[in-house]
Amino acid sequence: MDYSGILEEIKHEIKPLFGQGKVASYIPALAKADPNKFGMTVTTLDGNTYEVGDSKDTFTIQSISKVFTLVQAFSYFGDAIWERVGREPSGNPFNSLVQLEHEQGTPRNPFINAGALVITDLLISEFGDNAKIEIVNFLRRISQDSTIDVDLEVAFSEKSNGYRNAALANFMKAFGNIKNDIEQVLDVYFYHCSILMNCVELSKSIHFLANHGIVPHSGERILTKSQAKRLNALLLTCGLYDASGDFAFRVGLPGKSGVSGGIVAMIPQKLGISVWSPELDEYGNSLIGIKALELFTTKTGVSIF
Amino acid sequence: MDYSGILEEIKHEIKPLFGQGKVASYIPALAKADPNKFGMTVTTLDGNTYEVGDSKDTFTIQSISKVFTLVQAFSYFGDAIWERVGREPSGNPFNSLVQLEHEQGTPRNPFINAGALVITDLLISEFGDNAKIEIVNFLRRISQDSTIDVDLEVAFSEKSNGYRNAALANFMKAFGNIKNDIEQVLDVYFYHCSILMNCVELSKSIHFLANHGIVPHSGERILTKSQAKRLNALLLTCGLYDASGDFAFRVGLPGKSGVSGGIVAMIPQKLGISVWSPELDEYGNSLIGIKALELFTTKTGVSIF
Amino acid sequence: MDYSGILEEIKHEIKPLFGQGKVASYIPALAKADPNKFGMTVTTLDGNTYEVGDSKDTFTIQSISKVFTLVQAFSYFGDAIWERVGREPSGNPFNSLVQLEHEQGTPRNPFINAGALVITDLLISEFGDNAKIEIVNFLRRISQDSTIDVDLEVAFSEKSNGYRNAALANFMKAFGNIKNDIEQVLDVYFYHCSILMNCVELSKSIHFLANHGIVPHSGERILTKSQAKRLNALLLTCGLYDASGDFAFRVGLPGKSGVSGGIVAMIPQKLGISVWSPELDEYGNSLIGIKALELFTTKTGVSIF
Amino acid sequence: MDYSGILEEIKHEIKPLFGQGKVASYIPALAKADPNKFGMTVTTLDGNTYEVGDSKDTFTIQSISKVFTLVQAFSYFGDAIWERVGREPSGNPFNSLVQLEHEQGTPRNPFINAGALVITDLLISEFGDNAKIEIVNFLRRISQDSTIDVDLEVAFSEKSNGYRNAALANFMKAFGNIKNDIEQVLDVYFYHCSILMNCVELSKSIHFLANHGIVPHSGERILTKSQAKRLNALLLTCGLYDASGDFAFRVGLPGKSGVSGGIVAMIPQKLGISVWSPELDEYGNSLIGIKALELFTTKTGVSIF
Repeated sequence: MDYSGILEEIKHEIKPLFGQGKVASYIPALAKADPNKFGMTVTTLDGNTYEVGDSKDTFTIQSISKVFTLVQAFSYFGDAIWERVGREPSGNPFNSLVQLEHEQGTPRNPFINAGALVITDLLISEFGDNAKIEIVNFLRRISQDSTIDVDLEVAFSEKSNGYRNAALANFMKAFGNIKNDIEQVLDVYFYHCSILMNCVELSKSIHFLANHGIVPHSGERILTKSQAKRLNALLLTCGLYDASGDFAFRVGLPGKSGVSGGIVAMIPQKLGISVWSPELDEYGNSLIGIKALELFTTKTGVSIF
Repeated sequence: MDYSGILEEIKHEIKPLFGQGKVASYIPALAKADPNKFGMTVTTLDGNTYEVGDSKDTFTIQSISKVFTLVQAFSYFGDAIWERVGREPSGNPFNSLVQLEHEQGTPRNPFINAGALVITDLLISEFGDNAKIEIVNFLRRISQDSTIDVDLEVAFSEKSNGYRNAALANFMKAFGNIKNDIEQVLDVYFYHCSILMNCVELSKSIHFLANHGIVPHSGERILTKSQAKRLNALLLTCGLYDASGDFAFRVGLPGKSGVSGGIVAMIPQKLGISVWSPELDEYGNSLIGIKALELFTTKTGVSIF
Repeated sequence: MDYSGILEEIKHEIKPLFGQGKVASYIPALAKADPNKFGMTVTTLDGNTYEVGDSKDTFTIQSISKVFTLVQAFSYFGDAIWERVGREPSGNPFNSLVQLEHEQGTPRNPFINAGALVITDLLISEFGDNAKIEIVNFLRRISQDSTIDVDLEVAFSEKSNGYRNAALANFMKAFGNIKNDIEQVLDVYFYHCSILMNCVELSKSIHFLANHGIVPHSGERILTKSQAKRLNALLLTCGLYDASGDFAFRVGLPGKSGVSGGIVAMIPQKLGISVWSPELDEYGNSLIGIKALELFTTKTGVSIF
Repeated sequence: MDYSGILEEIKHEIKPLFGQGKVASYIPALAKADPNKFGMTVTTLDGNTYEVGDSKDTFTIQSISKVFTLVQAFSYFGDAIWERVGREPSGNPFNSLVQLEHEQGTPRNPFINAGALVITDLLISEFGDNAKIEIVNFLRRISQDSTIDVDLEVAFSEKSNGYRNAALANFMKAFGNIKNDIEQVLDVYFYHCSILMNCVELSKSIHFLANHGIVPHSGERILTKSQAKRLNALLLTCGLYDASGDFAFRVGLPGKSGVSGGIVAMIPQKLGISVWSPELDEYGNSLIGIKALELFTTKTGVSIF
């Protein structure tokens, strides 16, 4: 199937929504994003890529990196990671400390900030000082794009203002659920949030999850079939913070969003998809990105349900 | 495909789990359930039914009724119901008042008790004094079984001890989110929780959700295709209380559980499935029922992901 | 000491504050209170009464009744009441359910609504169907005023709208901390909240707490010296809902407020004091009443600290 | 009045309680405290000191230092400090993050850890790099004891394990309620918690609060009369963490406890009092210390109520 026409239609239909959301502004580097950008890419399992708009503009992937670090940790540690982090929707704004306290330092799932810090801690336990380069190399490999790099200025800026994440890390360390040095954990965390990618690279990076865990272009198995399915289930129930239920209801696909306006999603056995538009809704998800994905599933009639 | 062999295998494999859970005991009528019961039924869209064990034993469906009342309300009121109840996982034990207070009387989703009371209130607004009979008739129709009835002793017993649900109803009434008389809302609520069904009836009742909203045997459209998909999404993210994420992770199907040990689930475009075993896990879901469904998806290789 | 001059000064100084608060409006009977009313009375242990303004206008005493019912329950059951209700400040708005859930149905203290319902339940266990008349008679006795009566219209109106208190009662009943019939508990509760008193009667009713538990004019011992002291401590830490700390800080006296704008307080070994002005601050306490008491302690230089 | 006899009686009567509490063990330096220690001292406003037991053994004063840093901040900044910290009981365990989140980074009162960190931050804004020495010098001055010093090993050990306080500081910094460098705030905080004092020094240090803010032996005014009264009110409502209500009920005096087993309290216009015994109750307060103070008020008949 050729998705070019559908992507063009979507690009046209989302136009009236520009101006209804708000670009993230908690650090200057994010605040200066152009609110009128919109890019979208579909990569099918048979190797075709369809794109529209600003799909080759790079942006820091922010929380989307949590999918890739989770995949890495899951592939190295298997089900042992679930002793350190839960698998339930959080039912609270994504940076809340309440639930963390209630559950004795165990984050509800790997996609809230606390959970992603624990996953980062696991990768440091595995890779030591090579954690940063191992994370970037993993992304270069699964997207077959060796040029992927990191915006160090954003990483530095986020870390300098990252008091809430520092609070989370210290809090979990008090419960014994962070094993490595807090500074290092925060350092690696903000580093992988600042990885620069564009929509094309993202759709290529994610579509192994639609392919039972195997990277289609290289044949490399990243996760077992069962692990891939389970990770997709987790994305569906927890991938969009406190709006995960609404996203499942409206879009019906496993996905993950980031505060810079990107969202990745996939249709099992079919394709990986990515969208980017910096204006956010009240839940911190790309307002136009969600609408674009809703239009995509409506127009194609596909959904997992 | 003939599922008989798989069901027999499952029945054999779950045997060692008897005794590991606990039968619900908050009212005598539930406490006297035989802990060694196990039934399972698959009804495919082409009209075949496969069953194993105690699949013709009836039990009060308890919270499984929340799916059917939601379907009825959704079919009558459409998206207007989302002004009265949310669509997000609750992230809290199923009977918690905390979140309800935080969100000003709007329940997080229609499957927690508070949400089901609001849905019941909507049905009373629609049907008035006929609410009870309309709910039972709906079930008789979609399951093509005119013998379905209600255990009035259980309904009475639950209402007599239902202080927590009375608290929820009063609390939401204080916020204006219950419109009818509280006594009537509780009366209808405990009535539909006490509907008596067996596994065969349940799998037949649920499988229109796997068929884009149309009852296969009668051709009656209950929900639009889009509504059916969305309801399935909701079941996946919220159907098993605070263990919804874990159920999605392990089983990967939309489903709904009840405290008497029943679970219904479905595979879109394929089949409806039901299982019953009274012993519960720590989250109030059938311990053996969940395991049986996990075995089913593992053995058949099906999943929505 | 003659307090007449000080009371006149206070009446003059609080004038600019009229219009800064808001009269309670959750039931019509309260909403129609004249916002410009102000009365204040001091009754000294040697039997003198000093009054100013509308000190002979009656109003329903609302939550101030919680002091008197607690005193009755304490005198009948002694320290056994602390098995049913706590003694700690609530740290939450006065009608919150959160803490009640956290503490398994045991209210934090007898002055939040949940706690007062438990105390009412205790009095019903003691007096049965005579609970209402026993409560009113107790007030008539300690104030030496046989004309004290109840505004039944207010009682009825409050009960008809009292969904939140009904929620609390049902919730505690679910935990086993309400022993009698919920309807009766709510009935007696709203009845004693609707007792009609004026400032003179209130200052006379409260000043036995300043006198080591003995009613000065009659010599009747209501509480032991130790009990009276302890009850005063409880008033200081918990008497003004979520503003108790601020009241202790600014006024420095044990006291109790009601939503109709009344406040009672006392200076141990010296006097009982009451003030009434219907406009409330954001915490539900009389805005002018608190200011008047602050002026009183500043002008007289008295305080317990 | 000569309090020697009463102190001896108390020392005798508390003996059966040894072994019922638990010495704090979160750092080794505290864990090695001798559980059988007991000291108590009364310093009257006329300059007499009465002591019993191990009243000259020093211990790190821990949270008792929060009274003295608050006094310093109050004397420098006046009521401006209440823009940074509240005055209400916390209603939650002393190190809870929940309430802090709910109230946007403003601690409920200056005696919970979060509040004490804000007060420490204020002192650093005032004194800069001299904050540590200014705090110790203040204590030397008001106790007229120039030998008071700090246990640097304890300070270092607490800081090395102080992840929860680091979490609090980072969390409040995220809300803008910590102005200085977090490391410095934590450094000064753990320093003043590790000040070494004995019961005699403590009772002398606290008794200016019983004397309207003036140090009796030197005549130095530390706080205005009004400020002293208000600080006493704050101690009564908030000084013993989540057991403040119970302490007010049982003891009836303004006081402050520390995790090393010390408690200071005072009777306005009469005396300062201190007690030390390392075994703690479930709330983290000295089990024997509280009992000793209860016996003291019972035996002397004094109380503020």
